Amino acid sequence: MNIKLTVAYDGTNYYGFQEQRGTQYVTIQELLEKALSKLVKQRIQVIGAGRTDSGVHARGQVVNFKFDHWPVPLNKIPLAVNPLLPEDVVVLLAEGVSDDFHARFSAVKKTYVYTINNGKLPDPFLRRFTIHEPRLLDDKAMNDAAKYLLGEHDFKSFQAQGATVKTTVREITEADVERKGENIYISLTANGFLYNMVRIITGTLINVGLGKNTPEDVKAIIAGKDRTIAGPTVPPQGLCMERVYY
Amino acid sequence: MNIKLTVAYDGTNYYGFQEQRGTQYVTIQELLEKALSKLVKQRIQVIGAGRTDSGVHARGQVVNFKFDHWPVPLNKIPLAVNPLLPEDVVVLLAEGVSDDFHARFSAVKKTYVYTINNGKLPDPFLRRFTIHEPRLLDDKAMNDAAKYLLGEHDFKSFQAQGATVKTTVREITEADVERKGENIYISLTANGFLYNMVRIITGTLINVGLGKNTPEDVKAIIAGKDRTIAGPTVPPQGLCMERVYY
Repeated sequence: MNIKLTVAYDGTNYYGFQEQRGTQYVTIQELLEKALSKLVKQRIQVIGAGRTDSGVHARGQVVNFKFDHWPVPLNKIPLAVNPLLPEDVVVLLAEGVSDDFHARFSAVKKTYVYTINNGKLPDPFLRRFTIHEPRLLDDKAMNDAAKYLLGEHDFKSFQAQGATVKTTVREITEADVERKGENIYISLTANGFLYNMVRIITGTLINVGLGKNTPEDVKAIIAGKDRTIAGPTVPPQGLCMERVYY
Repeated sequence: MNIKLTVAYDGTNYYGFQEQRGTQYVTIQELLEKALSKLVKQRIQVIGAGRTDSGVHARGQVVNFKFDHWPVPLNKIPLAVNPLLPEDVVVLLAEGVSDDFHARFSAVKKTYVYTINNGKLPDPFLRRFTIHEPRLLDDKAMNDAAKYLLGEHDFKSFQAQGATVKTTVREITEADVERKGENIYISLTANGFLYNMVRIITGTLINVGLGKNTPEDVKAIIAGKDRTIAGPTVPPQGLCMERVYY
């Protein structure tokens, strides 16, 4: 049986999603594998849709694993597994999927949301899930800038230096900047993301929000294919893997 | 000069508001006194409106302190003090008040809010600020029950055993139970609260929400003046000191 789990976590205390073999760092993958293995008294390894970095959160991370003669009814899995996980990691949903389903390779697109707390003073209740930017950001200009990201582009300017991938071309199908109260939400949906891409895009959009760049500059930043002309990589705590589409 | 500060904090990591002399436990009072003393290079002691317990939060705790020739403009105090505080404690506002203002004794009423996450599954993003009750609570019945609390009563049934005060009579002027999405908010405003009163009232209202008690039972629980007939004391993390009125 091939089982798909949807998982939410507060990543503050963890060293990202992916298991770090031979280290003492605790990762989400490791916690899930331990809990599932304990449940069925047999070693289980899971495949994750994406490797969230240290301190990054998820509301809709997806993992899958195969297991013959799985003993727990699917709808009971969350209730059975959650007590074996720390409070900041929660299995939301378990579904049976076809044998060829692969959490990572079957994904067609993903949505990430980055949250900026744009209040004058920091909010102690949001500090784990936002970055605080006390200077008033022009969210309209940021949203205009985000629209230049839409479509298929070479996003090399928005990839952390040193990363190696076959191609840096990706297609972004949603790029919205929205203010609700004191928070600004940057939502990006794409068929794939380069390493640190959402955090570098956010840093670039913040520069637009501060008036350091115009929305049109983003067009030139994409065209330049040069990491040094994009904005800074913002910290991980504002980032959340919102949803994976199959 | 007599200065009034409004303070918000995530109390998860602290041993309540009040300084615990001669212990290693870190309290909010101690953090505020250290930060203010560092700012003006002189020992400052603050008076708090109320002693929140270990793990309890505040959006509107109030403190005051007196200081001759205070060197920092009042509107700059939050920006000057916050960098000297940990991220989970934030000074929101500083105001000059009359010499006879006392954060505790001048308070005429206070509002506390207790938040219950009533979703089927726990939410890792809310776990520090709510308790999770997966059984569906009847919030309408809880609200009906809360109305019996309104007015001046002897609230002895809702005081932690062993506490000693001159009188257990208090006046509750607001008692509302409201569901928003998966959360249920219990808001209580009174001229004073007994030790653990909000947490015991919440435990009692949860019993009503589960159908273990009827709303009318609350009337009898008040009249009984007996801690053992009220509901359990719920954990601290759902509790927040919302506002102090002067």
